[in-house]
Formats: sequence, C-alpha cells, structure tokens
Amino acid sequence: MGLGVGLIGSGYMGKCHALAWASVATVFPDVDRPRLVALADATPELAREQADAFGFGRGTGDWRDLISDPAVDVVSIAAPNQFHADMAVAALEAGKHVWCEKPMATSLEDAIRMRDAARRSSKTAILGYNYIQNPMIRHARNLIAEGRIGKVNHIRLEMDEDFMADPSQPFYWKSEKKSGYGVLDDFAVHPLSLLAVLHGRITSVVADMAKPYPERPTSDGARRPVENHDIAQALFRTEFGASGVLMVNRSAWGRKGRIALQIFGSKGSILYDQERMNELQIYSAEDPADLQGYRTILAAPPHVPYRQFIPAPGHGLGFNELKVIECHELLRAISGEHDAYVIDFERGLEIERTVHAAARSAVSGTWVKIEYIDLP
Amino acid sequence: MGLGVGLIGSGYMGKCHALAWASVATVFPDVDRPRLVALADATPELAREQADAFGFGRGTGDWRDLISDPAVDVVSIAAPNQFHADMAVAALEAGKHVWCEKPMATSLEDAIRMRDAARRSSKTAILGYNYIQNPMIRHARNLIAEGRIGKVNHIRLEMDEDFMADPSQPFYWKSEKKSGYGVLDDFAVHPLSLLAVLHGRITSVVADMAKPYPERPTSDGARRPVENHDIAQALFRTEFGASGVLMVNRSAWGRKGRIALQIFGSKGSILYDQERMNELQIYSAEDPADLQGYRTILAAPPHVPYRQFIPAPGHGLGFNELKVIECHELLRAISGEHDAYVIDFERGLEIERTVHAAARSAVSGTWVKIEYIDLP
Amino acid sequence: MGLGVGLIGSGYMGKCHALAWASVATVFPDVDRPRLVALADATPELAREQADAFGFGRGTGDWRDLISDPAVDVVSIAAPNQFHADMAVAALEAGKHVWCEKPMATSLEDAIRMRDAARRSSKTAILGYNYIQNPMIRHARNLIAEGRIGKVNHIRLEMDEDFMADPSQPFYWKSEKKSGYGVLDDFAVHPLSLLAVLHGRITSVVADMAKPYPERPTSDGARRPVENHDIAQALFRTEFGASGVLMVNRSAWGRKGRIALQIFGSKGSILYDQERMNELQIYSAEDPADLQGYRTILAAPPHVPYRQFIPAPGHGLGFNELKVIECHELLRAISGEHDAYVIDFERGLEIERTVHAAARSAVSGTWVKIEYIDLP
Amino acid sequence: MGLGVGLIGSGYMGKCHALAWASVATVFPDVDRPRLVALADATPELAREQADAFGFGRGTGDWRDLISDPAVDVVSIAAPNQFHADMAVAALEAGKHVWCEKPMATSLEDAIRMRDAARRSSKTAILGYNYIQNPMIRHARNLIAEGRIGKVNHIRLEMDEDFMADPSQPFYWKSEKKSGYGVLDDFAVHPLSLLAVLHGRITSVVADMAKPYPERPTSDGARRPVENHDIAQALFRTEFGASGVLMVNRSAWGRKGRIALQIFGSKGSILYDQERMNELQIYSAEDPADLQGYRTILAAPPHVPYRQFIPAPGHGLGFNELKVIECHELLRAISGEHDAYVIDFERGLEIERTVHAAARSAVSGTWVKIEYIDLP
Repeated sequence: MGLGVGLIGSGYMGKCHALAWASVATVFPDVDRPRLVALADATPELAREQADAFGFGRGTGDWRDLISDPAVDVVSIAAPNQFHADMAVAALEAGKHVWCEKPMATSLEDAIRMRDAARRSSKTAILGYNYIQNPMIRHARNLIAEGRIGKVNHIRLEMDEDFMADPSQPFYWKSEKKSGYGVLDDFAVHPLSLLAVLHGRITSVVADMAKPYPERPTSDGARRPVENHDIAQALFRTEFGASGVLMVNRSAWGRKGRIALQIFGSKGSILYDQERMNELQIYSAEDPADLQGYRTILAAPPHVPYRQFIPAPGHGLGFNELKVIECHELLRAISGEHDAYVIDFERGLEIERTVHAAARSAVSGTWVKIEYIDLP
Repeated sequence: MGLGVGLIGSGYMGKCHALAWASVATVFPDVDRPRLVALADATPELAREQADAFGFGRGTGDWRDLISDPAVDVVSIAAPNQFHADMAVAALEAGKHVWCEKPMATSLEDAIRMRDAARRSSKTAILGYNYIQNPMIRHARNLIAEGRIGKVNHIRLEMDEDFMADPSQPFYWKSEKKSGYGVLDDFAVHPLSLLAVLHGRITSVVADMAKPYPERPTSDGARRPVENHDIAQALFRTEFGASGVLMVNRSAWGRKGRIALQIFGSKGSILYDQERMNELQIYSAEDPADLQGYRTILAAPPHVPYRQFIPAPGHGLGFNELKVIECHELLRAISGEHDAYVIDFERGLEIERTVHAAARSAVSGTWVKIEYIDLP
Repeated sequence: MGLGVGLIGSGYMGKCHALAWASVATVFPDVDRPRLVALADATPELAREQADAFGFGRGTGDWRDLISDPAVDVVSIAAPNQFHADMAVAALEAGKHVWCEKPMATSLEDAIRMRDAARRSSKTAILGYNYIQNPMIRHARNLIAEGRIGKVNHIRLEMDEDFMADPSQPFYWKSEKKSGYGVLDDFAVHPLSLLAVLHGRITSVVADMAKPYPERPTSDGARRPVENHDIAQALFRTEFGASGVLMVNRSAWGRKGRIALQIFGSKGSILYDQERMNELQIYSAEDPADLQGYRTILAAPPHVPYRQFIPAPGHGLGFNELKVIECHELLRAISGEHDAYVIDFERGLEIERTVHAAARSAVSGTWVKIEYIDLP
Repeated sequence: MGLGVGLIGSGYMGKCHALAWASVATVFPDVDRPRLVALADATPELAREQADAFGFGRGTGDWRDLISDPAVDVVSIAAPNQFHADMAVAALEAGKHVWCEKPMATSLEDAIRMRDAARRSSKTAILGYNYIQNPMIRHARNLIAEGRIGKVNHIRLEMDEDFMADPSQPFYWKSEKKSGYGVLDDFAVHPLSLLAVLHGRITSVVADMAKPYPERPTSDGARRPVENHDIAQALFRTEFGASGVLMVNRSAWGRKGRIALQIFGSKGSILYDQERMNELQIYSAEDPADLQGYRTILAAPPHVPYRQFIPAPGHGLGFNELKVIECHELLRAISGEHDAYVIDFERGLEIERTVHAAARSAVSGTWVKIEYIDLP
C-alpha cells in the first residue's frame, strides 16, 4: 500500500496536485497507489466538500490537524504563498515529506528557514517546479549534457502572460507592495528553474523593472498607484561563463503561457516555447551544409517519461500531466532514488537568491553578484 | 456515490480509460466520483495486477463475469477491435451503459448488430471518438454553427502517422487482410468523426488505396506480400453541398499524430492540426482589409471545458485529457442530459458506412453513394 | 552585346518580365546584358508609355511588327492567354526564341500547335513556370534525385488563393465558360509544373470540380449563373508508381499564394509552401531516433542560384526574383547549355494534357488515363 | 530623363544598389529612369568590368573622379565602412545627393562630420537602412501610429546570425579591435533603425558584451585572442517611457537573418521576424474574447508599396527588393517630397550615439544616458 497523502489547499494548484495523486500509480507502474488521507482548506465545510470531490478520506479546516495525522506521510502544500514557510517547516518537523508549490516563500528569510528545516530533517522536501518535468525539457537537458550543442555560451529566457495587460483592469492584491516585487517573484522563478536544470546558476545580474500602468482604477471609481512592477528584465552571467538575458512580463498582450528559451552553444542551439510544450527545436552545426536548419522534434516515446502516458509519438501531453511526472519523481526521491529529478529546497533557495539579487540591482542600477557561500 | 465501472482491456486505451475514470470527478465537480469495480483482461493474473495498478476493486480473466456483475453500471470496452461487437451487445443486453473504443467493429454487419442492440436498450452507448472532445474542436464547431465562416463549401481532411513508413519493418498483423482495408479503417474514422460534429455526413465518395511497399520482410528472412493498403484518399461530397478530400496515410514519414483539417466557408476558414492540439486557426473575411490573416487561437478558459482543467489560458491540455472530457460527456448522457456531446452507436454506424463505401469505390473506380435509409 | 528582347504585354507578368530582363545580367555575371529593343501592347500610346517606363527602345501597338523586327532575338509573351498560341507560333516561325507565360494556351489544340511549331524550329521555346525556379524547389529536386527521402510513394499538391472567395463579388470574365474550366486551368498547371521537375508525370486521374457559388451578382443588380468551377480536386497515379492528390481552390478564404507540397518517400519526406517560399522542410528517417523531426531549411548560398542574389543566408528572395532566375535559364538554354532548367513546350504540353484529362474525368466520374503516345 | 547615378563599390551592397537603380523606374511609374553614369571600384579594371556587368556607362578606379563627374547627380556609397565619411563629405561638398550604406561610419567623430556636411549642404543625404522599407514594417509603423496596439510600453529587439558561430573558424579582420566593438556596431544599428521608425529613441541603456570564443585559430596553426565581442545585450528606456531589451549575436548557431521584434502596447502587440519578412503578427485585445490570438498577416497590396511589385497578395518580396523601395524613397526625398520615408544623416547620427553609449555602458557596468543636445 502506498504513502498517505495530505493536501493543503484545493484551488488551482491544489486540484492539480489532487489529479497527480489520483493518476500517478495508474501512469507509472513502479509506484504503489497512494492513499488520499486528508484535505485541508480554509473552512471545514469547504475542505469536506473538496475532499469528496477529489476523493480524499476526510476534510479539515485546520492544516495543523492534517500535519499531525499519523496516517499522512507526505504533505502537498498548495496554499497561498505566505503560508508556505510555516506549513513546510511544521510538516518537516512533524516528520513528513513535503511537496511545496512555488514560489518557495514570500521573503528570503522564510526561504532560508525552509531550507534549514529541510537540512535538519531526514525527509524529502521539494518544490513544485513542474515545467522542468516536461519530457521535452528533460530531453533538452540530456542533449545539452551530452554536448550535442557544444559548450553553452548564450541564453535568453522569456516568460510572458497577459493577465495584467489591460490598463482598465481594477487594482487588486497582485499590485500591492506586500505581494512582492511584482512579475519578478511571480514569474522569474519558472525560467530560472529551467535554467537550473538545463545549465546552471546565475552569478551576477543587472536588472530593470517597469510599470506599464502606474495607476489602476479602483472599485469606487478612484485610481490607486500600482505598488510593484509588471515588467522586468535582466542581463546575467552564469557559473559556466555564459551570458544571458531574462525577460518577464505579465502585461504582455497576446502571450498566454509563453516560457521561451533560446540556448546557444558552440555546436548548435536549442529553442523551446511552453505555448507549444510538445515541441523542441534543435539546430546542429554537424548536419550536412545543405540540410542545416532547426528541427522541430515532437514529444514521443524516446523522451522520458512520455511513453508512460502514451505509446504513440506526437499525441501530446498537457500542463497538468507535468504534475503527475513531478509526483512520480517525488515518490522516487522519497524512495531514496539518487537520480530523482526534482528541485529541492536547497536548489530552490538558490533560485530565490537570484530573484532577490535582481530586485536589488533594479534599485541600485548596478550589477549585483550572487554568492552561494552557504552551499554545503 | 457514483456509478460502478467495469473496464475490459488494460493496454493503451484501457489505461487511458482508467485515467479518465480516476480523474473525471476531480476535474468536473458536477459528477459523482465513480466506483472502480472490476477490470477484465486476457488472464486473471494480468487482470488482478492491472486492477491493483489502476485502482480497480477486483480483476477477472472473464469479461462476461465483469458484465454480469451487478455492481457494474457502465462498461468500458478497450479490448481488441474484433471483440467490440460481442462485448457491447452483451453489455447492453445485461442492462449496462457502454463506452466502446473505436473503431466500432471489424465488419459492417457487426456495427449494425451493435447499433441494433443500442436501439433495443434504454441504456447509453457511445464510441470513444475522443478527438472531438478537444475544446478547440468544440470551439470550431460553435464558430461554424454560429456562421462565423459562413456556409461551408470545401473541406480537406488529413490523418497521417509514420508507424508503417519503414519498408524494412517486418510484416505483422496490421498488414493482414483480415485486419481490414488497412489505413482506411485504421485512421479514416477519426477525421470522419470530426467531420460529423463540425459539418455533417458524406453522401458520395470516390476513393483510391495504395501500397507503398507491396512486400515486407518476415522474421525468417523471406518476404511476404502486404495484404492491405497503408495509403488511401477519397474525393467526397457532403449532405450540405460541400466538396472535399479525405487523405489518410500510415506510412507518412515525419507525421506523428497529424489530423489536419481545412474548412472553407463563404466568410472565412478554419484550420486545425492535432499535432498542435491546443491551437485553432481562423481567418475571417470580416476583419479589416489591412489586418486580414489567420489568427492562432490558444486553448483558454472560454473554450469549454478547458476551464475545468486549468484556469489560465495557453497552458495546454494533453491527448489523455480528451478522454476525461469524453468520460464526463458519457456521464452527462447517462444522466439524461440531452445536449451530451458524444458519438453514439447510431452516428458511429454512419461513419462505418462511409468507410466501407470508400473501400468499395476503391475497387470499382467509380463514385459510390452512401444511403442513410435506415435512419429513424 | 546581349540578345535583343521584345516584350509583348506590360501588365502584371509583362512588368515581371521587364524586371527580369533589366536585372539578369547584373545578378548573373555569366550572361551578356540584353538589349531591350521593343515593347508591344494594345495601343501604340500605351506601348510607348510602358516602353519608356520599362526602359525599352520603342513601343508598338502591333505585336507582329515587334516579331518581325530583326533587332529582336527573343520574344517575351505576356499577353492574355488566348493570344499565346498565335504569338508563339508566329515568333518561332520568324526565327525568334520564345518565352511564353503560362498557361500555354486556352485549348489543347492550340498547345499542340505551339509544340509542333517548337519542334519545327531550331529556336528555344519555354514556358514561364517560374515557381520551379525557386532555389528551395531546386534544392528539393536535388534531394529527391539523390535519394535523400528514398523512393517517392505519395504526393499531395495544393494551390489555393481567395480572389474568388467573396460570394458578393460581381460576375466577371473569369467565371465565363469561354475562360476555361475555372480553377483547373487557372491554377493546376503550377503545382503540376512542380511535380514535373520534382518527380514526373501523372498517368491517370479521377477528378471532381465544384462551384461554391452557383450564381454571382451582376452590375445591373441581377444574378448570373457561374459557368465554370472555382474548386477542383483529383486523385492521381504517377509514372513512377506514386499515388497522390491534387487540390486547387481559388475561393479559399485566407489563402493568398499557397502552393503546398507534401512528398513522402521510403526514407523521409519533404514539405514546401509557396507562402513561405524561402523555407523547405525535410524529415529524414536516417536522423538519430531522439532527434527526428522536420528541419526547416532557410534559403542560403548553397541552394543554387541564391548566392548570385545575396551572399548571406536567410535573407530571402521574392516572387519577382524567380523570374530573373528563369530568364537566366532561358539564356542558358538559348546558349545551348544542355542542363538548362526550364519547362519547354514539349513538357508544357504534357502538363496541359493532364489538366484536360482531369476535366474529362470530372465530367465522366471515372478514372482517365493519360497517354503520352506522341512523345518522341 | 532621370538623375545621373554614380556607384562606389560593387560588392554585396554595391550589386544591391545596382539592381535597385536598374529596377526602380520599372517598378515605380512615378519616377524617371535614372542614368547609370559611372561605377568606381578599387582598380580601373575591376571598375570597368563591373560597370559592364551592371550596365553603367563607365568605370573608374578613382572615386574622386566619379564624384567630380558633372553627369553624376547622386552618389551611391557601398564601399568599405572606413571610407564612408570621406566619400560622403566629399560628395556632399561637390553638390551631389548621397545614398550611403550603413553603418554610417567607424567612429562617432566621423558620423558627426557626415551629419555636419549634410547640414551645410542643400542636398539629400540618407543611409541605407533598407529593413525599414519592408512593407510589413511600414504597415506596423502605421498600425502603431494609429494606436491599434495602444500606448507602447515594452519592446524586445533581437538580431542574430551565425557567421561567427563556429569556434574553429580562423581569426579574420572582423575580430580585430580596429573593426569596432564587434556585433554591437555590426548589427545593433539595424534593429535600432527599426525602433527609430516604429517607436522612437533610446534615452538610457545598460549593456553587456561577451566573447563566446576568446581565441580563434590562425592560418599558421597558432591561436590569436579575439579583440572584440560577438555577443551583446542591453536594457533600455525610450523617450516615450517604454522599457526594452536589445540583443545581438553573430555567433548564434541556427539564426541566419533573424531580426525579431516584439512590441507590446496597452491594447495589443506586434511581432515580426526578418527571416519571415513577408509576415507580420498582430494581437488585438479588441477582438472578441473567444477569437483572440495572433493574426499572421501576409504581405499584400494594401501594404504600401507592395502593390507596385506584385498585384496579388501573399506572393512575397525579397531582401533585394527592399533596396528598390529605398531607392524610390531617396528619389522622392530628392524631389522634395516631405513625407519621404528615409533615415537621413541626422537620424542616423542618433542611432550611432546609441551604439556608442551602449559600448560605454558595457565598460562601466552602469546605466548611461544618451543626450540628444545637438538636435536642431
């Protein structure tokens, strides 16, 4: 019998976790079917209703009750970001494995606290960076690691959506200062997670942040100043000597789920766009001269673990299915598999450090170095 | 508590059904969580193993045992095609609802037998034409129904894969005469199912079938004549006066899951390709002259029922998730919802008739009319 | 000093010829600069005006005067289609080389007459099938000839535009019976010219023609029946055993200059679309399994004769520049180069035969064989 | 009779000028046919040979001789960059109009000297920024000016090629310090010219430059340090309050002629890529919610001056044809048309200032402001 699962939060990502827990053993025959023990949400009523809908054994309005349940072995944290730190630390201290949604926390201090709790614990603690789980990203990672595009020397990362693009959209909490820097925390962690698995870490950065709309209307007909930034960009250098650019924009009309990567090396290049998540493009300078061009590779059984979902090529995985893969890697990590492909709290903290360094640079107008002095 | 489910077959499509049954109530809050009662497969051992993996209560080596189980309300048939008719008829006669994978049957007689059993029964009987469940296809259907591209006058349908493209691939059962016409039964039903929901029925057809490789190697080093056709194409006319072309090819190097539609009307056109299943292209002649061009629409919450899976636009559904939508429509049909969006045995038989008419035309070299005389 | 040029017609294609004659020696250093001797058009005034604009020495309202001018060595025929035959025959009989726009003629008899005149003459007589001159098409031709996609077994040809797509567009001469079959003569010769250089000849065909709008408004507020067909499609077999489909539509909303080719072979496939005329896509089954996918090759110096225009790759040729290449090949043919890459009257007649056979098939509803009995 | 033309230089861009001068009057009926008077090149022999090939009246080994020729009214300067300033100043002082290839000069001082000479002269002096002449760019310019995407708030500019991407390519003059900063002068002026016509000027910038290959092999088997930078990127702000990123890379494997623009506004966005120069993409937030998506607009007669080349839409212009359009705008400017669409020496100097400011920023690591104090 599989592990006991507790899920905190049943909104967008909570539902995504629930689907992953329900599907993981059907998709991956190497894992035992998890037991869906308990679901916690803001009120007992909501929790019970969602527990029924998602097939969990019980619902509770108190997440601490869920964490202390001895039948729960692993805790999925899909609650609002400001609660991540307390929940993750409590769960780890209660001896549970933790699967926490990104972003890790709303302050660097909290992220460090989470990392420290993970270090003290013998349990697995990972973050929900599901974009890395796309078979096409893993394929890109392998191709780069095998040297198929040579030494990487230049990287461009873009993440753009348009949910803040309408200037007439009323002011809401995402534009408050206490929500963070704006798009920088909201988005940048995603391309940075991809950079982490495809290449490595950023060591210095110079950034800029912009407000396309300095004010927004309020419900009472007034206008309120926007307190953070919907657009941000940064130049960077990496630990392996590449230069690059990071661009994030949540007011980019027309972009819906774009996470575009351009990775250039000494022997070729790789392109990817999350809006066409079942495709990867590669250019190889080793192709015959008259046949050189970008290949568009469609997701297919050779691209691990696509085959577990669909035996035929080109049929396409969806965004939600990346969470199923992540869940499987979490279970592998819990089982002690050393090659489990996850972003743990240690690596997650490095991503947070990069974001905060970029924010400092945007204020100072100068390059900021990122020291990884606290690495083991 | 939800309906009791019996699943026959646990291969590719059986797994796909199992995932759908496990997810449907989590995705769609309007349905009760189904009970996964029993799974049947070729042997009791395999059935028990797969029942465990897929979360079904018990496994059985005898599909008749599953059908007679009073705890089973609905039977998923994902067994080899030649068994569809016997299983579906038996299930209907036992008072179960039936969800049968396509193609409907391996002979027109069997398909008629299934349709007749469905007519005699008061239960729901539908076919697993999951491509129609793509929110982008349903969106196209709505756009066409609303007249956004005017009166449809020309249609091109292509379905191509390359699993038979390698001439050195050994002869196997797919190339035997008893497997059917070849690509015509294998593939044509899919684009025809899309035509059925987007436009209507084919009334006459002239077809051609081709063998790219007349012989294939056998395991003993000899060569064996290929007995059916890997390539087929047909010109057609529809009940609403459109002309069109149907092209199917299972030896088309480079195509992996292509189902390409081009639908032209008096006010615009619509394009779709299953290899980019989260996109739909539309051209509207009503756009301003200097802005006319194909729009690429990304799957998004306005496209029913995308929102149930993901609240953000452009994040993409996968092939397997179409089965979850189909499962939901099945449950709605069982509940008596009159607008359930499914292809029932009645409509499924019409698709089969079209395929067989095309095959006759390929032999005679002349146009063949398709009479729908037996419609109620 | 180069050849003396006479140009008949100064409309769309006449201008295109004029640009080609003005540029050919600048682009291609191996040819002498032609002398632009005379231009003929409907009236002496128009002819003189256009001669000035296009840089020709004189203008004349009488094309026979141009043909009899001893300073003219080669005659460009860009007059309306119904005059092609008389002009080409007269020019050949006057001892001139002929460069005649497509389609060859408005009747099969005329086309045969032109071919016969060319046989009797020692001069060069070619047709203006400029799409074959695209370096990407020539590259595709080479790749196919070298066996890079193996033995070709299936071909799909589409040519679509939308200049007749608006049902409210008034009746005009293109819809008259005396203009020919409709889209079949208008368009089909183009993809057939590409088929001729890429693969070979069609040997049998079954076709259908359709009228999306049976009537059109007239200027006096009435409606007039449309006398020919804006949509046509055909199934075919080729002299090398391939099956295929030809589709042409001049009422296809959204298509502007689409000539789409799909060519499947035993080792790969090639795709092309004239709307992206500087790209060619190739899929090779010989690529490593995890890197298989369509390559998008951009026009570049290795693709003859791109380098003559631009030394840098990926900068793109235009439609008009194909005529410059064609002009160069014409000059090479005139110089007696045996590998000149042109469609002469002999080959052009074969294309005409195919079109007429398709039209007969559309009437009879049966397959029609095309005999090439009159070939030398 | 048209203006007398003198052409200095007959390499890549010289040929491009020659083609433009030969075609401009054929394409555009509103201009008189220019007289091709003289061509200057490095030696009298080469000059004479090229004059013959390109149809110029005479050749000369001395560019000052060409400039002093009274039959020459306008001088095309397509000589190596280091000669631009001397030639342009001399031509202007000799009372000739000047059409000078980009980049303007190899030092800011020279560029100022050229601008000053133009100010002193009553003649027209423009730069060869032909990418702005693409009808799709002019269309984008109009759409933006009309407010179709609202107020522009964010811009991304990329220009990438791969002619320096191979690390084994021997050291040559492009990598010498005296050639300039590297890719920054080589490429950045192109996207900046597009920015100039589409939006406006950059007012501050922070930049980074990188060497993917610090050394390159030499012909004698040794290795030589690379003295400038093949990769550069910059964050910027514009005079109209937009933020943006400029990225240029001449070692980007797979990119051939990429100049990619992303322009985001408050009501939509526009995308463009020079590798598909006959397409423009626009997203309009004013489209119906269920139809929102990027439109791909194909070059067509409504996009000025496409119609002058080809009366049918979607047939495509080529890179060389942009020079013909530029030539026409030059002739319009010379005729005193106030809406001539060109980049004159005044505007060209601003582009140069931006490049030099970026280079200074890359050294200092800080933001650099660009003052336009010397504007009239």
